[in-house]
Amino acid sequence: MNFLVELVYIITVGAIRAYKSIEFGIIKLFSGPINNYILRNSEKLAIVFHVPQNVNSEISAKEEARILEESNYPSILHVKINNLSIFSRILNQGSLAMAEGYSNSTWEFMGSDDQLVELFSRLIDSKIYQLYYHPINRFLHYLEFQAFNLQTSKRAFQVADKHYDMGNDLFESYLDPWMQYSCGYWARADNLNDSQLHKLELIAKKLDLKPGMRVLDMGCGWGTLCKYLAENYGVECVGLTVSKEGAKYAEKVCTGLNTKFRVQDYRDLNEKFDRIVSIECIEHLGHHNYRTFFEIMHKCLKNDGIFLIQIFGVNHIETPLVDPFMHKYILPNASFPYYLDVAKSIEDLFVIEDWHNFGLDFAKTANAWRRNFQDNWTSQLGQKYGEKFFRLYKLFIIITEATFKLRKMQLWQLVLSKDGLKWEYRAAR
Amino acid sequence: MNFLVELVYIITVGAIRAYKSIEFGIIKLFSGPINNYILRNSEKLAIVFHVPQNVNSEISAKEEARILEESNYPSILHVKINNLSIFSRILNQGSLAMAEGYSNSTWEFMGSDDQLVELFSRLIDSKIYQLYYHPINRFLHYLEFQAFNLQTSKRAFQVADKHYDMGNDLFESYLDPWMQYSCGYWARADNLNDSQLHKLELIAKKLDLKPGMRVLDMGCGWGTLCKYLAENYGVECVGLTVSKEGAKYAEKVCTGLNTKFRVQDYRDLNEKFDRIVSIECIEHLGHHNYRTFFEIMHKCLKNDGIFLIQIFGVNHIETPLVDPFMHKYILPNASFPYYLDVAKSIEDLFVIEDWHNFGLDFAKTANAWRRNFQDNWTSQLGQKYGEKFFRLYKLFIIITEATFKLRKMQLWQLVLSKDGLKWEYRAAR
Repeated sequence: MNFLVELVYIITVGAIRAYKSIEFGIIKLFSGPINNYILRNSEKLAIVFHVPQNVNSEISAKEEARILEESNYPSILHVKINNLSIFSRILNQGSLAMAEGYSNSTWEFMGSDDQLVELFSRLIDSKIYQLYYHPINRFLHYLEFQAFNLQTSKRAFQVADKHYDMGNDLFESYLDPWMQYSCGYWARADNLNDSQLHKLELIAKKLDLKPGMRVLDMGCGWGTLCKYLAENYGVECVGLTVSKEGAKYAEKVCTGLNTKFRVQDYRDLNEKFDRIVSIECIEHLGHHNYRTFFEIMHKCLKNDGIFLIQIFGVNHIETPLVDPFMHKYILPNASFPYYLDVAKSIEDLFVIEDWHNFGLDFAKTANAWRRNFQDNWTSQLGQKYGEKFFRLYKLFIIITEATFKLRKMQLWQLVLSKDGLKWEYRAAR
Repeated sequence: MNFLVELVYIITVGAIRAYKSIEFGIIKLFSGPINNYILRNSEKLAIVFHVPQNVNSEISAKEEARILEESNYPSILHVKINNLSIFSRILNQGSLAMAEGYSNSTWEFMGSDDQLVELFSRLIDSKIYQLYYHPINRFLHYLEFQAFNLQTSKRAFQVADKHYDMGNDLFESYLDPWMQYSCGYWARADNLNDSQLHKLELIAKKLDLKPGMRVLDMGCGWGTLCKYLAENYGVECVGLTVSKEGAKYAEKVCTGLNTKFRVQDYRDLNEKFDRIVSIECIEHLGHHNYRTFFEIMHKCLKNDGIFLIQIFGVNHIETPLVDPFMHKYILPNASFPYYLDVAKSIEDLFVIEDWHNFGLDFAKTANAWRRNFQDNWTSQLGQKYGEKFFRLYKLFIIITEATFKLRKMQLWQLVLSKDGLKWEYRAAR
């Protein structure tokens, strides 16, 4: 953004914050009826909030049976509310208030992590969620996260600083040995490690590789896809990343292989590749830049080349493309591509050879990550990252699992060609 | 269309015809340089036109070698021109003039049918084609075929009268035993009959059928998909068609099975189905009606249902969606869906579970149809349909083969669900 646009953006965000503060004041005036409304409606979801006045009061078996019968859910979920103001905050700030309230124990969940996933599933699909995500908040959301281009060249590297460069020890603690920070492929797998290896195999097969081909991995993470392809298919891999830590790690992992890693803006690319692969990377670009991204990938792909892109995306018109909680605490500026934006952005550039949706596999991947993350959290990691981070990060994984389980988000692999492949190409499954 | 719109449409088409007549007069004034231009440029495609003055003059081996070297094509194709005015006509009318000229022998092809496919491949991909398909003709094309809704309820049944009800003997002469008038699936087949059976199997697998389910076949042809599904999967099938002949045939074929066939407008549907399947039927609806079509399919599909749609579509922005030759002689009002129109039309209605492109298989299917059509053409069929029909219909199949071989057209199967399938669904391949 140039200076003037940046200024308008800062003023806009400031105005939104001011408006939100005033709104919060007004909401608090009506906190009585609001709390009652939420408590009443949560019963329909078989969620029981134990509020400060009667936290220890157990609900009777008869009461439980009534709630279950009226709700049509198989079990009751219990939530302890330590400060009733959380309801007003959620109405004001949505997922952000929910997450912050969880991290500082304004509310606590009285059950297992699996049940916590279930809690989010029920809430995301409910009227309570719609209470926050109404037209005004949608508009403010749009103003803050979508109207401006938050992923300019200057800002493109922020996500690396804030997230990917946090420390490899964190990611090593819960990812699979291939360090795949993206969805696994579970069609024939029953554990994370297999699912990620199968994903690598699936990508390689879909790319229809021949020895000696030049492959670009756009957003190469820790370079392990490059390693896999160079080692098993005899291709030459160039990995692009915004993360210095990632590039260093990749260099080490790929010692002796025909690979190169660069910390570089994709806009500066100017060479030809037989194959291009990009795994969950477009999420960091923002819809303002999709067209440029696909144009550059088109320019860099040979005429008979294949471009495989894996996307963490949205098919439902009402699903928000940016989550304020994730934006603030986990992946700054991340925005989930809308299927129509993807389809429009490739117009006149690519032919869709295959569009594979395996969204439910992300629920399984996140489930496995959550278990590993919990199990492998050491006092050393605790000292380095802190308890607050632990709770927020676990919540991020939990919300991801819930959203994909509900199919409110999709996981796509698209195989694209420049003009239609003239040989008999069959995308693997 | 109401009366007024119909009137405007008729006037528009009349004006286009008048303009085209005047244009033809002007083109004829310049026929000398135009003919020279085409003859010169056709050499670059290794196409030699033998014009009336020197039809029998053979070109020298040296000349052939030069043409081949300059063109980069592996072989020379020879075309006999019986009337030089054909070039002006093609410039004026495009594929329509090409087809009519072929049917009345204004030009003749001096080679095999396989080579004729090659001729069209070269022409479609060439500058000569662009000579006709320039911005003015594109606009007129748009005015005539796309600006108005040609597929109103009233007109929806025209295609049956003109095409599908021509006579079952014609289709029986060259289609497979399952009477599949749509693209086969050749991933594991090497002949037409297997490819069509595999297509039926593929559809059944993708539909994830359970006995007792209610299936709607929207555009059921001769009812053979219904027969296949009812017989092999124990489901109840309702087939909808615009063709009375088709429905009669279907009733006979499905005797004793749990099937029903109706000659009915889909807009009148008002019942629920577990599965909906629609094979190359949307091509007859026109883009004005896609949204309505998908809305009605959405209304008729149960919440956890699957909708499979097979489409003969377009991914390239410059490929025309209506072919004047096919419109006039083969499939009146047929329009090939553009991928973005499809994507937009399902917005807020369906989640894309899978988008399978097997366009090259249509080239194989058309190739097999063409051979059957040629081989099984009897004097009886000849008497009934005439020589002109034979030549036009064969040309239709040949142009289809050429277009799909070039990948200028696509063949899609989309699997759609209303809100994302919550169980582990894997679209078969």
